[in-house]
Amino acid sequence: MTKAIVLGGSRGIGKAISDSLKTIEIDVFAASKKDIDTSNLNSVKKFLEKNTQTDILILNTGGPEPKQFSTITEEDWNKYHNQLFLGFVTILQNIKINNGGYIFLITSSVIKEPNTKLIISSAYRAAFTEVFKVLSKEYAEKNINCINIAPGPINTDRTQEFFDNENDVKEFEKTLPMKRLGEPEEIGNFVKAIIENNIKYLSGVTINFDGANSNYIF
Amino acid sequence: MTKAIVLGGSRGIGKAISDSLKTIEIDVFAASKKDIDTSNLNSVKKFLEKNTQTDILILNTGGPEPKQFSTITEEDWNKYHNQLFLGFVTILQNIKINNGGYIFLITSSVIKEPNTKLIISSAYRAAFTEVFKVLSKEYAEKNINCINIAPGPINTDRTQEFFDNENDVKEFEKTLPMKRLGEPEEIGNFVKAIIENNIKYLSGVTINFDGANSNYIF
Amino acid sequence: MTKAIVLGGSRGIGKAISDSLKTIEIDVFAASKKDIDTSNLNSVKKFLEKNTQTDILILNTGGPEPKQFSTITEEDWNKYHNQLFLGFVTILQNIKINNGGYIFLITSSVIKEPNTKLIISSAYRAAFTEVFKVLSKEYAEKNINCINIAPGPINTDRTQEFFDNENDVKEFEKTLPMKRLGEPEEIGNFVKAIIENNIKYLSGVTINFDGANSNYIF
Amino acid sequence: MTKAIVLGGSRGIGKAISDSLKTIEIDVFAASKKDIDTSNLNSVKKFLEKNTQTDILILNTGGPEPKQFSTITEEDWNKYHNQLFLGFVTILQNIKINNGGYIFLITSSVIKEPNTKLIISSAYRAAFTEVFKVLSKEYAEKNINCINIAPGPINTDRTQEFFDNENDVKEFEKTLPMKRLGEPEEIGNFVKAIIENNIKYLSGVTINFDGANSNYIF
Repeated sequence: MTKAIVLGGSRGIGKAISDSLKTIEIDVFAASKKDIDTSNLNSVKKFLEKNTQTDILILNTGGPEPKQFSTITEEDWNKYHNQLFLGFVTILQNIKINNGGYIFLITSSVIKEPNTKLIISSAYRAAFTEVFKVLSKEYAEKNINCINIAPGPINTDRTQEFFDNENDVKEFEKTLPMKRLGEPEEIGNFVKAIIENNIKYLSGVTINFDGANSNYIF
Repeated sequence: MTKAIVLGGSRGIGKAISDSLKTIEIDVFAASKKDIDTSNLNSVKKFLEKNTQTDILILNTGGPEPKQFSTITEEDWNKYHNQLFLGFVTILQNIKINNGGYIFLITSSVIKEPNTKLIISSAYRAAFTEVFKVLSKEYAEKNINCINIAPGPINTDRTQEFFDNENDVKEFEKTLPMKRLGEPEEIGNFVKAIIENNIKYLSGVTINFDGANSNYIF
Repeated sequence: MTKAIVLGGSRGIGKAISDSLKTIEIDVFAASKKDIDTSNLNSVKKFLEKNTQTDILILNTGGPEPKQFSTITEEDWNKYHNQLFLGFVTILQNIKINNGGYIFLITSSVIKEPNTKLIISSAYRAAFTEVFKVLSKEYAEKNINCINIAPGPINTDRTQEFFDNENDVKEFEKTLPMKRLGEPEEIGNFVKAIIENNIKYLSGVTINFDGANSNYIF
Repeated sequence: MTKAIVLGGSRGIGKAISDSLKTIEIDVFAASKKDIDTSNLNSVKKFLEKNTQTDILILNTGGPEPKQFSTITEEDWNKYHNQLFLGFVTILQNIKINNGGYIFLITSSVIKEPNTKLIISSAYRAAFTEVFKVLSKEYAEKNINCINIAPGPINTDRTQEFFDNENDVKEFEKTLPMKRLGEPEEIGNFVKAIIENNIKYLSGVTINFDGANSNYIF
């Protein structure tokens, strides 16, 4: 049976992907922060001792709290360097993706249009996007796809926390082209659809998933 | 019943999309060059008299023969200006896309990494990509998605014609990360998968579909 | 003596470039619309009969009036196809740039972040940017540089016309990172500085010139 | 007198910038690795105790040795995270750039078109590019420019070391559009030219400096 590991699989986008993959008879390990804390390299290494191979891997993790550049500490940078970059690097250096498999990376639209409050996320997610792009060419030889999904504003707990109250969320939604946040299920279904339909020539790509919100031409 | 119009629907990628949509009970009009010749604005206008609305529209057309810049004539430029740009503009200015519908545009990876022999295609497909991006924000209000698929080397008659003989195709394939051309069916299935799964937050996006062949980071 | 032809050289950015080049002992032909109307291919061809070679060429022309997509006529598209694309193509197909020369193209920041009101400009300037990129590699062999400058909001008559009155301009300026429009002289001096300093390895590049206003990462 | 600090100012591109700025009566501190080692945060902090303000700052540092992804150690990642990212962050969090000043960042063309052997450089230089872009908007209010120069292959000791022998360098040069490496002096003169001409509306921009070598459209 096809096996999938979904990091950050207990909530938000990760949970939606897990739930969606379960509907097509994939053996899904929805890893929570108890299973693996990507901000802690020891936790990552322990996880890799038990999880040595998979068919499908979803590299997904929450981002940092919004913070202004001047107030970000050395500790903050190092923590999120681990969580958003080095943890994922360590996983890809050690786990075996079986031939014909898929790796999905969940980043954010802020890698293309960086946001002053999400500067940590912009920086380290962009850094890992570079690594992922380079590796996509190597994985291609084993028929393994690398797909980077860059979501815009999605209706998760995290997004809700961004705002002071529900009214602010509603005001924000009015400014979006589709007049609503994206639903985690839409990303979950997208991932499922690609796997289910055995679409293999889609690789080495960053896909904006933002309801026409970004302004850059590509 | 959901209705789809697929331009260039009688061969290559267009045919694959048509065939794929037919499997999910969509009423597909696979328009051939006899039905509409996008290089001829009169043909386009005639087509629009009979086809005034649709749920799904696939803007797809073959590109020009490879040609060096110095040898391209004014007539060539004007012909492909119609075929790759103004024909599509005229369609979007006149056809009604029903609320909740989808518009897929099939361009080419040469819009991001232009190719000296395909300079006409790079130019006018990029031009229409700009129009499509702007319109994606307006269509978003009607829950209509605009998705630009930018294929790399796909196994179509056109690609085969590019090469002198079958051996040259094989040599070219060895240079690709996946060691093969993409299959039109992969794009067909991708389009079908998005519609079938009712994925709506994917809009205003250009998706490389090139088997990890492009080198630009995004 | 080094010779420069500056299209649209009688006003705005073109005039500023002309004035700047004159300060460094370059023989500048600041071509006005009377000398060459790039929206009229016959005018372009006549110009090329008299002007067969140059050391420095500045491809510069005003853009169209702001217009909504639905109201743009076939005539509009064809006119600006000539003015913003085919006129420049015809020039580069026919004029000789002397070895070691420079070609500067003045486009707009809307090629990267298209604007709903400037959709014609976004489309055709992007199209020509593709051509210019491809040609930059061929010109490189003759030590001729191709530099595309993509200005943001610059203090020209055209920009002023965009707004109803001077107060609106001031309100707009407050929204800009530098709290002011750019001055044409800054672009003029930039072009001069590159030529004066004989900087040759800067080619095949699009340079945003927008006072930190754009949001895309690159 | 205008003051400039040039990091990595004792060799290569940094030295060329220092030399160029000295010709226009700027008080240049060409900092060598003895003065500040950006891979060592203590060294950075010590440097900042003595250097608390400047008019012009050149953020420049050598990159890592070429290394395949699978062989890069945790120590490597952390070292270059400091050298290419966190050191620069610490500097910008602590140094005062005087109003009307300039910050130049020297990165690499591999941030746009990542290179398998230079994966560390691609990752962390891209990460810092995100930070720099965000900050460009804040610095703009103080009339301070942020300009990111992304060089392609430049004729430095580092580039020479890349190749086994001089013949390999020559073979590589033949593959370049301009048939030669760029010279550090071209970058030095470019930086000088911008400052000398007081060009201020050029900010928040990444400028490819690669002799038409890159393939991405922008």
